[in-house]
Amino acid sequence: MAKKIGVIIDFLTDEYAKKINEAAASHGYEVEYFDSSRAAVGNVDDCEIIYGHPSQKVIASAKNLKWFACCWAGVDRFCRDELYQDPDCLLTNASGAYGTTIAEHITMVALMLLRRQMEYTEIIRSGGWSVLDGGIRSLHGARITVLGTGDIGTEFARRARAFHPEKLIGVRRSVRPNPDFDEIHAIGELDALLPGTDLLVMALPSTPDTEGILSRERLALLPDTAYVINVGRGTAVDQDALIDALNAGRLAGAALDVVVPEPLPADHRLRSAKNLLLTPHVAGNMTLGYTCELNVKMFCDNLDRYAGNRPLTHLVDRKKGY
Amino acid sequence: MAKKIGVIIDFLTDEYAKKINEAAASHGYEVEYFDSSRAAVGNVDDCEIIYGHPSQKVIASAKNLKWFACCWAGVDRFCRDELYQDPDCLLTNASGAYGTTIAEHITMVALMLLRRQMEYTEIIRSGGWSVLDGGIRSLHGARITVLGTGDIGTEFARRARAFHPEKLIGVRRSVRPNPDFDEIHAIGELDALLPGTDLLVMALPSTPDTEGILSRERLALLPDTAYVINVGRGTAVDQDALIDALNAGRLAGAALDVVVPEPLPADHRLRSAKNLLLTPHVAGNMTLGYTCELNVKMFCDNLDRYAGNRPLTHLVDRKKGY
Repeated sequence: MAKKIGVIIDFLTDEYAKKINEAAASHGYEVEYFDSSRAAVGNVDDCEIIYGHPSQKVIASAKNLKWFACCWAGVDRFCRDELYQDPDCLLTNASGAYGTTIAEHITMVALMLLRRQMEYTEIIRSGGWSVLDGGIRSLHGARITVLGTGDIGTEFARRARAFHPEKLIGVRRSVRPNPDFDEIHAIGELDALLPGTDLLVMALPSTPDTEGILSRERLALLPDTAYVINVGRGTAVDQDALIDALNAGRLAGAALDVVVPEPLPADHRLRSAKNLLLTPHVAGNMTLGYTCELNVKMFCDNLDRYAGNRPLTHLVDRKKGY
Repeated sequence: MAKKIGVIIDFLTDEYAKKINEAAASHGYEVEYFDSSRAAVGNVDDCEIIYGHPSQKVIASAKNLKWFACCWAGVDRFCRDELYQDPDCLLTNASGAYGTTIAEHITMVALMLLRRQMEYTEIIRSGGWSVLDGGIRSLHGARITVLGTGDIGTEFARRARAFHPEKLIGVRRSVRPNPDFDEIHAIGELDALLPGTDLLVMALPSTPDTEGILSRERLALLPDTAYVINVGRGTAVDQDALIDALNAGRLAGAALDVVVPEPLPADHRLRSAKNLLLTPHVAGNMTLGYTCELNVKMFCDNLDRYAGNRPLTHLVDRKKGY
């Protein structure tokens, strides 16, 4: 029986299928495509590899799984050991595929906040044509703190650099040099950095450590003129504290692409918070063709490594959660 | 009688006045500040220099004017020779002061168009939380054509570069090397460039040459998937043709910060055009503190040159109009 790869991706095109089939064939694998997780559950016993965005049920039912190549960057739901029948089953994510699109999203919402674009949208909507009192602000000279210096944080820093910020600081679990930032600090120093931050960008994976990391106390350390952007996971922010700070004017504005819960109910308090720019979890995901291409390419490259017994890229440490 | 500088700027602060006064005093000038053009008309006979944004009437009434340091970038209204009693009166603009803020505006609206942010705003507004069919697009890999490679076009190109466009082409009156673009073409080649353009950015001064430069015929040369951004002067675009192209889906979208007329009437056809992002002439102007600082600094630097009989920077050729 041939070795088998099960693929569940909703962005499949003929072109992508061709690439996946060629890479698989060159290493003696057959590929089976499933339209949905529902179609896959109970039918993946013969899959040594699963690629895509299956449900947890699919993974739990894959008796002979050796490698789950998840096409998302955030894999927190797939880090529970009990999900895997083989304790040594490998898990990779696609963190490199989203940096470009999410960095563009961050740049867009940062400029929209600084330039008060939400207010200008309302002026135009109401038939007006006027300049707001109080002026706008700029990335030029801004002090930017990026929480999480992985693919997303780094790609954003590279773009932000071109706008001449005063300071571009990266904060991560532990200090490791990154030439795209002016300084890298360990998470323990975050509280000391917040009072000097104009723009706080949060691009963290969801782990027990990052849950609620932007707490009510930390929000209070930011200047009244600061902006907060979150593109990681909604759980990283104390939403009630954020709403209170925005409505009281203790924060200039915020942009959230991720919230709790998703989808956000139509009557949720977040929807009426002042100066809050909400987007429905679209910073990343597969809406950009380039992301899909990279995603497929990363899987095929990793398949070469897997078949050649070389170490995989984007391997996830299930204990750490990323 | 001391030599005199008349200043009319509505962004005057104590700090700026101090800087201007110091620069003036060091060269033996007195400074008179006027609250408005109305206050200045008839009271500027003794001004050798006027700095700011006076009305044409003020300039026409300044009998002994030798230098008008206009604090705007666009000076088309001040290029008529008959405005000046002394035919050799110098005219400078502040084109260098707006590049930063307008480049940020262009980047913001480009990303908003590519990422369909106007549609996402509507989804959130209506209480929804969903991903649009058909995907979004990216500056990554985009073919960008910038019409006008002055301060604004160049500052935008420097920022756009960080997003990895496929091609960054500058188009100007006549070819002159500019390392911030991949290629520079003369305006005569524009028609040949349009079919290969994903994003057309227009940052042209208002001159007889640029009026209606984006004609109905040229709009038809752009791909259906192209976006148009105009931050120069509204007169550069055939607005009726643009509205027709947008509503017929022969253009993916557009962002106009400048229109004809301004202010735009509440019932104007532009307001209901499909995929059109309107902003009320706020890309430049003095709403950004950094712009004001640069503006004052540029005037003071030029005053040093003027007093030292050295050539002024940002000197405008009244025949050309910029």
